[in-house]
Amino acid sequence: MNIGIVGLGLIGGSIGLDLRSRGFDVFGVSSREQTCQRAVALGVVDAASVNLSDMAVADVVFICTPLGSIESIAQKLVPHLSPDTILTDVGSVKTPIVQPVSSLWPNFVGGHPMAGTAESGIEAAVRDLFVGRPYVVTPTAETPMAAVERVEEIARSLGAKVYRCGPEEHDRAVAGISHLPIMASATLVAACAQEGDRDIVKLAQHLASSGFRDTSRVGGGNPELGVMVARYNRVELLRSLSIYRDCLDEFISDIEAEDWQALEQKLKLTQEARRSYDLSN
Amino acid sequence: MNIGIVGLGLIGGSIGLDLRSRGFDVFGVSSREQTCQRAVALGVVDAASVNLSDMAVADVVFICTPLGSIESIAQKLVPHLSPDTILTDVGSVKTPIVQPVSSLWPNFVGGHPMAGTAESGIEAAVRDLFVGRPYVVTPTAETPMAAVERVEEIARSLGAKVYRCGPEEHDRAVAGISHLPIMASATLVAACAQEGDRDIVKLAQHLASSGFRDTSRVGGGNPELGVMVARYNRVELLRSLSIYRDCLDEFISDIEAEDWQALEQKLKLTQEARRSYDLSN
Repeated sequence: MNIGIVGLGLIGGSIGLDLRSRGFDVFGVSSREQTCQRAVALGVVDAASVNLSDMAVADVVFICTPLGSIESIAQKLVPHLSPDTILTDVGSVKTPIVQPVSSLWPNFVGGHPMAGTAESGIEAAVRDLFVGRPYVVTPTAETPMAAVERVEEIARSLGAKVYRCGPEEHDRAVAGISHLPIMASATLVAACAQEGDRDIVKLAQHLASSGFRDTSRVGGGNPELGVMVARYNRVELLRSLSIYRDCLDEFISDIEAEDWQALEQKLKLTQEARRSYDLSN
Repeated sequence: MNIGIVGLGLIGGSIGLDLRSRGFDVFGVSSREQTCQRAVALGVVDAASVNLSDMAVADVVFICTPLGSIESIAQKLVPHLSPDTILTDVGSVKTPIVQPVSSLWPNFVGGHPMAGTAESGIEAAVRDLFVGRPYVVTPTAETPMAAVERVEEIARSLGAKVYRCGPEEHDRAVAGISHLPIMASATLVAACAQEGDRDIVKLAQHLASSGFRDTSRVGGGNPELGVMVARYNRVELLRSLSIYRDCLDEFISDIEAEDWQALEQKLKLTQEARRSYDLSN
């Protein structure tokens, strides 16, 4: 089977490395000639070029570019594909991708491999990035089942745990557990930065420990990523943020009212609720 | 020098282990006879009893009981102390401790060693718990300087980094970097628990990854601890929460208004601000 990968960064490159080692023939496309050369040198792909027309030989094409360019890549790509070719992507928000790209290419299956490292770019590509990680596949009622199963089969061959759901369900779920944490965490750093007394700021910077480090980590991450998820998952993120604000107000009310029993009850439920998440990922 | 430790849990026990290894004679007091026996068996103290009167021999006494009992322990303890004895504590909030205990015993020096593990109790006591960690000493204008310096010297002998500030400065700094994260993090878990659709909840529980894990960690911690810091540092925590809520509203406004430039600017400032914290702790 011939695999095409458009966008040779961390995710595209890591998919390439793994699929080549599973015996697939992997062809890459990058907009930069230098990236193509590095991808071949690193063994990420068998061959690479800057021409989307080279994807004509592929049975399955992964679009691994940033969210903002998936739709436009698909538009340029589809004239070159043979009718049976399955198209999939790796974007972290699904509804705004699945709707337009499925119209362009009925054999499109939205996908979201939930893996990464702090690095990016072709040099960051690593083997086994997806082992034991969730890989969400988001068909619609119209997506051909054979295409869905083919993408899931490839995802499983990467060692990922495959989940299937609609694009809307995916976007609501990740709004809460992936995009809301970015904003709640960024707000923590922003709030601490409001302190006007320089001595307190200095002291806080010295005393900050694992609690602050962990809670502020995703909020201190890549600003472009934060903007991208807010932009593409705006409605679901705003819904999550609104629920978050209501919950925050309840915590504040308990503390204002010195209702320690109510606060303890909330924190017990929180402790309990957190245990039901699969945090071994 | 004779060291007394009242309260033989993780912190008291770990202080005992280290100070014995530095050649101090360490005497412990616990309200439970069984804890006294274990403390001796584990080498945490040279001797231990359930009687506060045994602290009469100590040159420096550490009160290492939970925040809620420090003042009442001090009340029962001071009749047994010789006038030169230095009294200190390890409570995580300082103003509500330093004020009343200094009135009871002028030779009192508030302290806060910022170290811990997920465990508690005497069995959790470990050597070198304080190495490289902040140890805040919070004298008032009335605290005798000799007592402050003696406590700082002991803290340094534990390998800690010593910081000196007023109790109010301490409480404001830790409200932001230690107590606010607990509430922001607990609110995240509470918000995700509000989701009514069981399928979404199940999916979210499977997809939750390192971002959710880290951001929710301190909010899913010991509920008693969360209540205790809210109770003792209520005014400063409410101040921090109010600033947090205002910052949250600004993030929400940017996303509602689709002002991606403003959002990116905020996230860039956040990324930048986080780098100024000493997160090697």
